[in-house]
Amino acid sequence: MKFIRFGQPGAETPGLIEEGKRLDVSAFGEDYDENFFATDGPQRLATWLETFRATCPVVDENERLGPPLVRPSKIICIGLNYKDHAAESNMDLPKEPIIFFKATSSIVGPNDDLIIPKGSEKTDWEVELAVVIGKKASYVSEAEAMDYVAGYCLHNDYSERAFQLERSGQWVKGKSCDTFAPLGPFVATKDEISDVDNLRLWLTLNGETMQDGTTAELIFNVPYVVSYLSQFMSLLPGDIISTGTPAGVGLGMKPARFLKPGDVVELGIDGLGSSRQVAKAWGA
Amino acid sequence: MKFIRFGQPGAETPGLIEEGKRLDVSAFGEDYDENFFATDGPQRLATWLETFRATCPVVDENERLGPPLVRPSKIICIGLNYKDHAAESNMDLPKEPIIFFKATSSIVGPNDDLIIPKGSEKTDWEVELAVVIGKKASYVSEAEAMDYVAGYCLHNDYSERAFQLERSGQWVKGKSCDTFAPLGPFVATKDEISDVDNLRLWLTLNGETMQDGTTAELIFNVPYVVSYLSQFMSLLPGDIISTGTPAGVGLGMKPARFLKPGDVVELGIDGLGSSRQVAKAWGA
Repeated sequence: MKFIRFGQPGAETPGLIEEGKRLDVSAFGEDYDENFFATDGPQRLATWLETFRATCPVVDENERLGPPLVRPSKIICIGLNYKDHAAESNMDLPKEPIIFFKATSSIVGPNDDLIIPKGSEKTDWEVELAVVIGKKASYVSEAEAMDYVAGYCLHNDYSERAFQLERSGQWVKGKSCDTFAPLGPFVATKDEISDVDNLRLWLTLNGETMQDGTTAELIFNVPYVVSYLSQFMSLLPGDIISTGTPAGVGLGMKPARFLKPGDVVELGIDGLGSSRQVAKAWGA
Repeated sequence: MKFIRFGQPGAETPGLIEEGKRLDVSAFGEDYDENFFATDGPQRLATWLETFRATCPVVDENERLGPPLVRPSKIICIGLNYKDHAAESNMDLPKEPIIFFKATSSIVGPNDDLIIPKGSEKTDWEVELAVVIGKKASYVSEAEAMDYVAGYCLHNDYSERAFQLERSGQWVKGKSCDTFAPLGPFVATKDEISDVDNLRLWLTLNGETMQDGTTAELIFNVPYVVSYLSQFMSLLPGDIISTGTPAGVGLGMKPARFLKPGDVVELGIDGLGSSRQVAKAWGA
């Protein structure tokens, strides 16, 4: 299944994409939140659809898409998880996963505008595969980790490099601005993705390719990361793990290149669709 | 007002402390969540009480206290915000606030057990003044920052020093274990605290004083921190800002001293009550 949420910001309605059509499943009576994932929501919704599919209204293609799940308890990001990106960042390969958080208040819909923060001169992009947790995970082994994964979605881990790296320690400061986490277009349940370890992911800036990588190059793959994180904290249903970005971010270019108002960023991952953000100045 | 929540974990009921008595205010029909703070809940509850105070059941003193507010969107912590603690940590004084996040899944009641994580040998304590945000704050000035503060509570920012400092960058890894954020006993609205810049805060281990400081020694005080953070992210109603810890943590001792099963940690802040955690081994 492919979960979407559509409508105005803060008032989104749950839906699905089936055979290219958007279906309104609000009659199911639940949104895609922690409780939905914690109580086998995807399976229950699939069962409900067997009876009610034909009664679900089709959603207009021009409706805004919101984030494809309700704001989760946390977004955990893995830093420097592709060799080529660690190299372009002039950082050593991590011996174990580097983790940082991103404020969940930064989440927006996949095609919402990117707001360049006030005073920012180094707003950068990062296409990433995001994992959605399906049930509470604490001290789970790598072998059983995939049982705790509900699905995946596309994420652009926008990053303000000066805030992140030049403003007194800890990366979260440059990762958490409003609009810095466009998620979606949809969350695909894991059965939709045949080989999560071999997905192409790409990003263009004004039509020019900036990033073009594959999850085959992940240093720490999905089951490893889920198991690893669960040694340090409980992962809750609906939580997002963003697995890191391949080479091609603005910070890594010579000279470095950052976003300006009017820039158009497009990105995608095999099987997880694509998204598009237009950069705007704060207050514009 | 002093907000409490009581009852079994995950099923807490909202209440108040008035003149030493615990009142059940579940009849008000709301819990202390983002929506409550965003919609002038404290003022509305005060008005409701004028009519219904006498009908509120008194809560038994032996009832467990839960966290005094519903799990917020984020816990933001300020690092090295007391000079003496920066010195004992062998770290430079920060030029601007160092911020890190703590997973909200680490929140527990004020007197719940501390679970020492599996494999942990360096679990440490940190008494802290926590600020509760009252309305959405984005780019607010220092002069207006206090308008965005709902109140305060006591927080023990438990920290696993090996996870935090020896396991590949970014402190969140040692800050987010389950039970690492006992909050409360209560959230005091800001009118209850006459001078937030002059509160004594203390912590004892098995009755021996470890920390004894005052918020007068904060490098960056409450309005500064609220304004500062709001330049990097939106603070949402109910969000927690934990303002840092004074000297006296286990890491700073010579030799360093960390928690063992059976240890009893007690802590308090002027006007914000006290809490008590007993350390237990994971799985015990």
